Amino acid sequence: MNKNPEKVILLGHGSGGKLSHDLIRDIFVKYFHNKILSEQTDSACLPGAGEEIAFTTDSYVVDPIFFPGGNIGKLAVCGTVNDLAVSGAIPQYLSASFIIEEGFSMKDLEKIVSTMAEESRKAGVKIVTGDTKVINKGKCDKLFINTSGVGYLSREHHPISAGSKIAPGDKIIVSGSVGDHGVAVLSARENMSFSVNLKSDCASLNKMIWSALNISTGIRFMRDATRGGLATVLCEISETRRLGIEIDEENIPVKSSVQSACEIFGYDPLYMANEGKVVMVVDPADADKVLDTLRQDTLGKQASIIGEITEKHPAKVILKTGIGGRRIVDMLTGEQLPRIC
Amino acid sequence: MNKNPEKVILLGHGSGGKLSHDLIRDIFVKYFHNKILSEQTDSACLPGAGEEIAFTTDSYVVDPIFFPGGNIGKLAVCGTVNDLAVSGAIPQYLSASFIIEEGFSMKDLEKIVSTMAEESRKAGVKIVTGDTKVINKGKCDKLFINTSGVGYLSREHHPISAGSKIAPGDKIIVSGSVGDHGVAVLSARENMSFSVNLKSDCASLNKMIWSALNISTGIRFMRDATRGGLATVLCEISETRRLGIEIDEENIPVKSSVQSACEIFGYDPLYMANEGKVVMVVDPADADKVLDTLRQDTLGKQASIIGEITEKHPAKVILKTGIGGRRIVDMLTGEQLPRIC
Repeated sequence: MNKNPEKVILLGHGSGGKLSHDLIRDIFVKYFHNKILSEQTDSACLPGAGEEIAFTTDSYVVDPIFFPGGNIGKLAVCGTVNDLAVSGAIPQYLSASFIIEEGFSMKDLEKIVSTMAEESRKAGVKIVTGDTKVINKGKCDKLFINTSGVGYLSREHHPISAGSKIAPGDKIIVSGSVGDHGVAVLSARENMSFSVNLKSDCASLNKMIWSALNISTGIRFMRDATRGGLATVLCEISETRRLGIEIDEENIPVKSSVQSACEIFGYDPLYMANEGKVVMVVDPADADKVLDTLRQDTLGKQASIIGEITEKHPAKVILKTGIGGRRIVDMLTGEQLPRIC
Repeated sequence: MNKNPEKVILLGHGSGGKLSHDLIRDIFVKYFHNKILSEQTDSACLPGAGEEIAFTTDSYVVDPIFFPGGNIGKLAVCGTVNDLAVSGAIPQYLSASFIIEEGFSMKDLEKIVSTMAEESRKAGVKIVTGDTKVINKGKCDKLFINTSGVGYLSREHHPISAGSKIAPGDKIIVSGSVGDHGVAVLSARENMSFSVNLKSDCASLNKMIWSALNISTGIRFMRDATRGGLATVLCEISETRRLGIEIDEENIPVKSSVQSACEIFGYDPLYMANEGKVVMVVDPADADKVLDTLRQDTLGKQASIIGEITEKHPAKVILKTGIGGRRIVDMLTGEQLPRIC
């Protein structure tokens, strides 16, 4: 008999009873510890905010849960921090809610939770409230995590999230190479493994974004290019604002490893998910200044101006290809790569 | 060939692309519509709060997703509203994040979402931000919903959620019969169906709770008795505050149908989940006044003083039984009934 059987999640860990308490104390509070969380109240009580509050939510279901450059926990923190940051808010507080399959390895859970704690510290946010549910074996796939987030927002930055100030002539900036996360997860998938020396770009962008907001009042819109990739963000901007967009393929940073993996699998890097890239629409007068600021940050070294907003062809995104052609970039109609985040 | 095949959820509905947009527009925005949500920004932008913010999260995984008296959507709204309300906060905004199994019926999704919209209106809260993920068939069980919530909290009510003012002599009030939700879900489960004319008590308690807070400054602690039931709430209070609790079985409202179902299945109603019952610890001078106020609300008609806080036997909950005996009420050690909420 194995004297040290691996500890696993039992249905009782989701009971709200003793095992739940042990799990909260031994794993969640241990790693996420902060004054607000340790009160273990039904709702976290947060200090009064500034002028406005930004509030966001995302459930993370990435498969596999560990991938080159990160895991589902890191993704859950970065993703929600970035959703707040692109709204012009300063991310402050996160919730973390776990749906765990019975039998899930306690060691893996601890690894994931400790990554979340580390990433929260890096991003300067606190995980202040949470929840755990356990699902019978076979009724969910290992682990899903929901993180919701609250950030402080000044009235001055409110219009950014709606993009209401986007105007023809505005420059489009992407903060670095596209498709890294999508290809990294793809490479980690069962039966699809291939040798790519590539990591997910999964990172919290709030500090870099805040630096840019601090040196420019000309940032009209931001979005992190996650599911659906850069193409989807651009299609959304162009449809919502009824303006055209022209981008130049030659200026879009794509790693050669990402390019070749996409060619093998028939994917387009423009639609591949990113988890550490922001797309900005910036007043042309400020574009170079913003670009310089992004490039000063490790996460934005390869930032590039990739195109601009135009009055021509409203609600259409046009890509000028490397060989001088032009093609319409459409919104994804089906699922390119399920469970990428 | 079926000309009107039932519409189902496809993996593409979770892609972030066109199908995702259609789903958001045709289902989520259609039912939840409000000015903040319709901006469809990464984070909802909320007006500045009062003195403090209450922030909470819960994932709902109840099985089955439809049960007498409610469904997973109603539960997701009520549960999070109640978590905010028992913290002394006024619930304001909810997020709603859906993890949906591929092939899930669009009609069922719409029914659930419309229930959420209806319950939000009743509770006076707005669903302002959301997320959808779709999981390959067989990798999750139909539908899981996370709701996080933000409420406004005045400094005066801050100490309630921590229960730091609980003192010996305080009265314990429960707002109505216990175990209804647990037995209703049990009765709806496959292979366990039995005829019980019983509905889940699933309800938003915020308005009733706010009435009580308005007439008394003597409410020292509140909690909604969900997973683990009344017993778990009392054990938590007694352990956290290192005080004893004595409750009187004769004063605890239990419906006869709940009592008999529990006897058949070997469950204890004290541990059965509720989704519309609040437990309050109240200054003895205010107990009758609070009781009267609760009873004036439809949801609190059967409110009852069930016991009190005592300095005797610290950290122990003692039940005086109907036949004059005394027994210790312990925290649940395993899982009594998985996926009850």
